[in-house]
Amino acid sequence: MSFSAMEIAKAAKDAFESSQLIPSSRRVEALHAIRTGLTSQKQEILAANKKDLEPISGKAAEVEVHAGRMSESLLKRLDLGKGDKWDTMLQGIIDVANLPDPTGNVTYACELDDDLELYRMSCPIGVLLVIFEARPEVVVNIAALAVKSGNAAILKGGKESNRTTQLLAQAISNGLSTAAFPETYIQAIQTRAEVSSLLGLDQYIDLVIPRGSNSLVRSIQNNTRIPVMGHADGLCSVFLDESAAVEKAVRIVVDSKTDYPSACNAAENLIIHESILHTVWPVVAGALLTAGVKLLCDPATLEVVKSLSPPPGNLETHVTPSAAESYTTEHLSLTISVIVLPSVQAAIRFINSHSSHHTDTIVTENADNASAFCRGVDSASTFVNASTRFADGFRYGFGTEVGISTGRIHARGPVGLEGLVIYKYMIRSKSKSGHIVGEFGTGKKQFKHNLIHATSVPFLV
Amino acid sequence: MSFSAMEIAKAAKDAFESSQLIPSSRRVEALHAIRTGLTSQKQEILAANKKDLEPISGKAAEVEVHAGRMSESLLKRLDLGKGDKWDTMLQGIIDVANLPDPTGNVTYACELDDDLELYRMSCPIGVLLVIFEARPEVVVNIAALAVKSGNAAILKGGKESNRTTQLLAQAISNGLSTAAFPETYIQAIQTRAEVSSLLGLDQYIDLVIPRGSNSLVRSIQNNTRIPVMGHADGLCSVFLDESAAVEKAVRIVVDSKTDYPSACNAAENLIIHESILHTVWPVVAGALLTAGVKLLCDPATLEVVKSLSPPPGNLETHVTPSAAESYTTEHLSLTISVIVLPSVQAAIRFINSHSSHHTDTIVTENADNASAFCRGVDSASTFVNASTRFADGFRYGFGTEVGISTGRIHARGPVGLEGLVIYKYMIRSKSKSGHIVGEFGTGKKQFKHNLIHATSVPFLV
Repeated sequence: MSFSAMEIAKAAKDAFESSQLIPSSRRVEALHAIRTGLTSQKQEILAANKKDLEPISGKAAEVEVHAGRMSESLLKRLDLGKGDKWDTMLQGIIDVANLPDPTGNVTYACELDDDLELYRMSCPIGVLLVIFEARPEVVVNIAALAVKSGNAAILKGGKESNRTTQLLAQAISNGLSTAAFPETYIQAIQTRAEVSSLLGLDQYIDLVIPRGSNSLVRSIQNNTRIPVMGHADGLCSVFLDESAAVEKAVRIVVDSKTDYPSACNAAENLIIHESILHTVWPVVAGALLTAGVKLLCDPATLEVVKSLSPPPGNLETHVTPSAAESYTTEHLSLTISVIVLPSVQAAIRFINSHSSHHTDTIVTENADNASAFCRGVDSASTFVNASTRFADGFRYGFGTEVGISTGRIHARGPVGLEGLVIYKYMIRSKSKSGHIVGEFGTGKKQFKHNLIHATSVPFLV
Repeated sequence: MSFSAMEIAKAAKDAFESSQLIPSSRRVEALHAIRTGLTSQKQEILAANKKDLEPISGKAAEVEVHAGRMSESLLKRLDLGKGDKWDTMLQGIIDVANLPDPTGNVTYACELDDDLELYRMSCPIGVLLVIFEARPEVVVNIAALAVKSGNAAILKGGKESNRTTQLLAQAISNGLSTAAFPETYIQAIQTRAEVSSLLGLDQYIDLVIPRGSNSLVRSIQNNTRIPVMGHADGLCSVFLDESAAVEKAVRIVVDSKTDYPSACNAAENLIIHESILHTVWPVVAGALLTAGVKLLCDPATLEVVKSLSPPPGNLETHVTPSAAESYTTEHLSLTISVIVLPSVQAAIRFINSHSSHHTDTIVTENADNASAFCRGVDSASTFVNASTRFADGFRYGFGTEVGISTGRIHARGPVGLEGLVIYKYMIRSKSKSGHIVGEFGTGKKQFKHNLIHATSVPFLV
């Protein structure tokens, strides 16, 4: 039986609304039930995963890979039976279950009048639409995050793992049912057409989280009124200021660029203060070339590299002049664009106008420059003497990560479970005749506004 | 000299970025400078205000008012010289200046490794575009909120007070300059065409805040990719459950409906539990009719009112059958739609599908119903035995209000200064060789993730 996008969205909203009366402890039970559900369907799911892989495995896969239709790494990412992937996926559910509950926490409470109290309590957002590419185990990861935070979710995985995704979602629904949650709390969809329709249903869907390529994110941002959380670009910069220590500079630049070049928090631009053009830059350039990195250089940095004696390895093949667009390109590979600038102020301006406001770092021994850089660079993460690669939810201590946001509202930078909640206000009057506004004002009652220390709302059962 | 929308937006972003290095204490000085600037231009501004009023004051105004082109209340709202409006406006600046600084506060801090610390610090969002109707003093109010929270702003007032708005904005800019802030930190624009162009510039503008009619908000929401904070509808409900005490019911329903009928937090729907149809409802109906409220009733509540003996006053003129659309109409006047329902669950479902998720209240003596209502009603504010009219930033203790949001992310319900900030993450390594990610992982260094107690970032100067 197949449902329309409207039916799917409405079912998700209904599931969300009815789940609001379920105590949050039951969401932890549901996560354990999901784990059990997946375990009991393991053979079936792995068989489906094998079937998903069939057209692209064996001889056929080699052909596809060579033809560029399917990259080898994608093939590796799709295989749920590989190594300890299955067990890691199940352990991930328990890890999420064990995280602190992001809902039900009072973040503001105030006595407004005798017997009149206001509480602001964290609560789920509503219905999430999560769209991601490849990696079928992300279905399970996202489902766990949604359940833990009390949000309903509609999931769309990569088309290459449709069979796997459907079975995973079904096992998740089964688990939810045994824990008395609505089956439609977590739903999976299969087609892009369904996504397009869902993006128009802002009365039912509250937040879209795209996880994937730049083009995926951009196309979603351009086609919906629903708020979108995530990032299209990860254009990060490293700035070596006039006081940069050479060892730090080398380590941080090389790690930022080469630790995982296709990650969104890898560095794409390198800014060199002009006063270290002949001191630190040659050493950094040599280290990058040794690491196999291609350098796109502005005239000044190019000249220095070209005139080094002896010439560094890879000079002929790996050093080329940059163009204006080099500095707004997310290479996602072992390539970095290099420019020389005269001051920390110029570096800040350059980063603010060229970066994607994701993560930028300064290498410096100067406290004033460190402070100016962190204040002035308008990015989600600004670092001092640390690799851009630290921008990550797990590394930040959130346990897990929903994604990394370059947006300016709600959640910015690596987003943990906190990014999946909002809050609501509640007022209770305990007075004999209830509270009305008409009794307050000039010459009448005044508001007390005494802060209350509370961690939960006392009248919720 | 006139500037293009692009130039205005770019100037705002530049002003925002350069202001990031100015200590926040200077923003308080700037607010005092703005107050001084306004005081010194008082005569000029009031003269411009008079000129704005000219086409609609005196005989001409009466004609306009009678012709329905200009309501009397609008005329009253435009007049900046009326009563203590001017002084209240100036005092408002000082009140905002005295509020706690919403920026620079550390909300999460964590030791990641020896000599590696992470801080999450509240900071301004960026450039705000605020669009409002009529009331010229809102320019000053919004400018004060923007300056206090460290955001740049572009303001568009009602066309009826263009001269006043321009002069107010000019006086504000003068004040900002004397405090060494960029002049373009606060800018005013005059035409709808400019607004349309600005709504397309999401690379420069970070948040749109429309304050005005339903149609204004809706048209903005439909015409921009920039996040919009606010509410189109204020469709609030009062539910009288089976245990509702009659005095409370009367007071809360009448206050919710009549205290300020055109406010977004006024009640538009009244839900009666079927078991009190013949007990509480007749008393409430009588009180509403006495207060001059028109009742749009479903068949059950209508029959009860019609069969009362003696018949209540206004019965003939003020009681009519409701239609399906009555319950999704924001009357904004002395009219309320009434329906009978069989349970608190039915009331929750009705509110979730008909209300605008703004503010809803239950009148009850039953703790379980109060809890279920507050959990189950998916609105920004849910109340127990209190008037819907309490949903307001000042009443909530925020000192002032940016607006009320029915959105589900970032800020929900009455929004104070906190709604104008986001956060950024900062990492500092103090280690001799800087920190790189390649040193962490299986068989290597592990993250420490020890929470740090900090109220500010220690390395910012």
